[in-house]
Amino acid sequence: MSKQCDIGLIGLAVMGENLALNIESRGYSVAVFNRTTEKVDDFINGRAKGKNFVGCHSLEELVGALKSPRKILMMVKAGKPVDELIDSLLPLMSKGDILIDGGNSFFEDTERRTKYVEEKGLLYSGTGVSGGEEGALLGPSMMPGGSEPAWPHLKPIFQAIAAKVGPKNDIPCCEWVGPRGAGHYVKMVHNGIEYGDMQLICEAYFLMKEALGLTNDELYDVFNTWNKGELDSYLIEITRDIFSVKDDQGDGFLVDKVLDRAGAKGTGKWMSQHALDLGVPSTLVTEAVFARSLSDVKDARVRASKKLKGPSQKYTGDKKAFIEQIRHALYASKICSYAQGFVQLQAAAKELGWPLNLGNCALLWRGGCIIRAVFLDRIKEAFDADPNLENLLLAPYFTEAVDKAQDAWRHVIASAALLGLPTPAFSTALAYYDGYRRANLPANLLQSQRDYFGAHTFQRTDKEGVFHADWLRLRKEPQA
Amino acid sequence: MSKQCDIGLIGLAVMGENLALNIESRGYSVAVFNRTTEKVDDFINGRAKGKNFVGCHSLEELVGALKSPRKILMMVKAGKPVDELIDSLLPLMSKGDILIDGGNSFFEDTERRTKYVEEKGLLYSGTGVSGGEEGALLGPSMMPGGSEPAWPHLKPIFQAIAAKVGPKNDIPCCEWVGPRGAGHYVKMVHNGIEYGDMQLICEAYFLMKEALGLTNDELYDVFNTWNKGELDSYLIEITRDIFSVKDDQGDGFLVDKVLDRAGAKGTGKWMSQHALDLGVPSTLVTEAVFARSLSDVKDARVRASKKLKGPSQKYTGDKKAFIEQIRHALYASKICSYAQGFVQLQAAAKELGWPLNLGNCALLWRGGCIIRAVFLDRIKEAFDADPNLENLLLAPYFTEAVDKAQDAWRHVIASAALLGLPTPAFSTALAYYDGYRRANLPANLLQSQRDYFGAHTFQRTDKEGVFHADWLRLRKEPQA
Repeated sequence: MSKQCDIGLIGLAVMGENLALNIESRGYSVAVFNRTTEKVDDFINGRAKGKNFVGCHSLEELVGALKSPRKILMMVKAGKPVDELIDSLLPLMSKGDILIDGGNSFFEDTERRTKYVEEKGLLYSGTGVSGGEEGALLGPSMMPGGSEPAWPHLKPIFQAIAAKVGPKNDIPCCEWVGPRGAGHYVKMVHNGIEYGDMQLICEAYFLMKEALGLTNDELYDVFNTWNKGELDSYLIEITRDIFSVKDDQGDGFLVDKVLDRAGAKGTGKWMSQHALDLGVPSTLVTEAVFARSLSDVKDARVRASKKLKGPSQKYTGDKKAFIEQIRHALYASKICSYAQGFVQLQAAAKELGWPLNLGNCALLWRGGCIIRAVFLDRIKEAFDADPNLENLLLAPYFTEAVDKAQDAWRHVIASAALLGLPTPAFSTALAYYDGYRRANLPANLLQSQRDYFGAHTFQRTDKEGVFHADWLRLRKEPQA
Repeated sequence: MSKQCDIGLIGLAVMGENLALNIESRGYSVAVFNRTTEKVDDFINGRAKGKNFVGCHSLEELVGALKSPRKILMMVKAGKPVDELIDSLLPLMSKGDILIDGGNSFFEDTERRTKYVEEKGLLYSGTGVSGGEEGALLGPSMMPGGSEPAWPHLKPIFQAIAAKVGPKNDIPCCEWVGPRGAGHYVKMVHNGIEYGDMQLICEAYFLMKEALGLTNDELYDVFNTWNKGELDSYLIEITRDIFSVKDDQGDGFLVDKVLDRAGAKGTGKWMSQHALDLGVPSTLVTEAVFARSLSDVKDARVRASKKLKGPSQKYTGDKKAFIEQIRHALYASKICSYAQGFVQLQAAAKELGWPLNLGNCALLWRGGCIIRAVFLDRIKEAFDADPNLENLLLAPYFTEAVDKAQDAWRHVIASAALLGLPTPAFSTALAYYDGYRRANLPANLLQSQRDYFGAHTFQRTDKEGVFHADWLRLRKEPQA
């Protein structure tokens, strides 16, 4: 009997358990293992009771419990534990078997591991999984990459458990992404975009709270309304919800008792660092990561707040109109954030030699994951209409959307600057838009400076070639 | 005779040649070597003619030409060439000899190399050198770090060749920085700050050119005036000069013929990436790096400029007043940029276990280097007054300076947003100031979101501990 399991899963933390239950619920038998083996027994006698699971107390037992080609989904902590687990499993498995890493691994590790496992004659799939605990249980967004021959074996299971979207709710948010680390890269960009989305929502919140003095009840209504329009998305929805949650340990609302220090687990940082390596301006995610860093030094901010002055922060214009302008600012900034994310995906695919279908990426994010949003349908359409679209901002739908929003967007950023309220993500989004749409930027001066002090040379606007000028000799002699 | 040289230098590119000439001009004898040995002969028969140099055609010859303990300054391309050179030199040298890397090495390489060379019984000094070609010849800023016992041997030569500042022009811009990679780290932060300074100047230029329509002659006058006040600095000075340089290959000014694509050599990127690793918000350098990336995709921008619309960009207010406001914006932003740089230095010193004297860093940058400025005297004074100053913005002089500038700064950023002119560095500087000076940021919402979808937990404002809430269960049931 134990030879019959369809798939094995290692690592019974919450994400692993929930994925195992999700897979089993679609009619598959699952062999499970956890390093601390009590966890296996707890699971088998608890949430898995009466279900089609086989609890294993060793890797040997797990491998022995699987149909061929074996499929083992690793849900362990990213980093060294994954390498160690691979090295423990390889001697037990056979050629053609499939190892899947469903954790938040760094894409470069997955590049390396795919090559390593393939050299041993096995298949490897780095698969991004998003949707948190609930998604894992009920339908996550899945971004599988790695050894392409693994895909036909994984597809039935993965597409069965993934979130579904579309009018008939039958389009799975799971498609093959690309070779080696492509799956984890797409997941990383998903998370980076999530950082941007969350920061943008926080800036909108801060403006409405501080400049307009909105109560949590009023904020609930605003986000509830926003969730019915262009901004309809999971993050707007849970933001709305948050403003309804009362503190169960005291008076008032829980959100007001939560300390304003934001944690981070590193994928936003990875995306920012790789954008810098690629030379693509992913400013939204980077500002969002830095905003979390600044939030983290709470004590330093409290000290600084007693010394550094700023203007009054009350908005004196029309309140209702300003809320609507903030909505426009959020939407336009969000479009820029996704535009940057897709530009980075394109650049990474080129750099790392992956064929990458950007429309598929948008499709994967339509349901199940944290950034799921109605908006992603428009992105999918844009890439379906033009698979080589170089920037989302150039798709007619988005060109028009930003144009419609821009007056409001500009007004919000100008107001925030004058009121003393920080909007790093709104502002960098606008700077990106205004920079990208300019045929001419002031970098002619910058390159002149570089040539002046470092002989770094420059190109000219009127002829081909590389030039250097002796600026010091050519300059007007300064007056004493 | 050839046993008598005070120091050896390897790598006769422009920086190496000029440093060699500078050292010799202070009364030292210098043995020189270059891999392409014709370069040695050209130098010896050219610029070095009649001077106290010994040209060497092999590393053995170079090592044999030096006094003990031998001091060899490597001026070669960063990366693998440095490792290869070290491995070629080590077998030829003796315990107690000193290897110096005066190139733009990545600090982590210098950390590793210092340990490696010390294990072999020799001393190693990673020394940042700034000032471009001219600085190398006449007096650079020098930032030596590495094996501390090397310092007494290097000090007389390095302080002799370094730039001098102070009322009597006798304070050398060269002091011991710290162990291992500290010297190259300080150089990296210098370069990152340079990126910020240059980007800020470009934004000021762009506003005056596009919004006010200033001619190059008028821009010359503005920067000439600015260079007489708080902004007095090398970069403002060369910017002024640039606006006086006529195109020697056609009509008009050269700066208008220079293509607006800015190159980069990587130190700004390194600083940004390490800020992300450290979790410190060095947003100025990062936005400056990204601005260069965006400038680099010239063709894409030209295409985008035909599709993406924006507002009219003419400023209709008082021209002269706006110029003065831009000056304030530049100054306040610059203060934020340096504040971030010093915060990053502090965080790196803590992370990497270096004792680091921040006042010394400011001193090193007072002369010789690209960011040299009167302004650095104020920074030095601030760290002298309080060596543990946690942020430059909290030093009374700078607190007041920013406060005095902030109305103008805000007006400029608001105007730029409304006019459609990108000011990523001005804007992120203001967002940093407005974020840092706030006891409360909207990260309470962000951490609530993280706890909602990922059970990431939160702290509370009113009690110690780590909390998690079942937000989904506690939320108000949404209406259909």
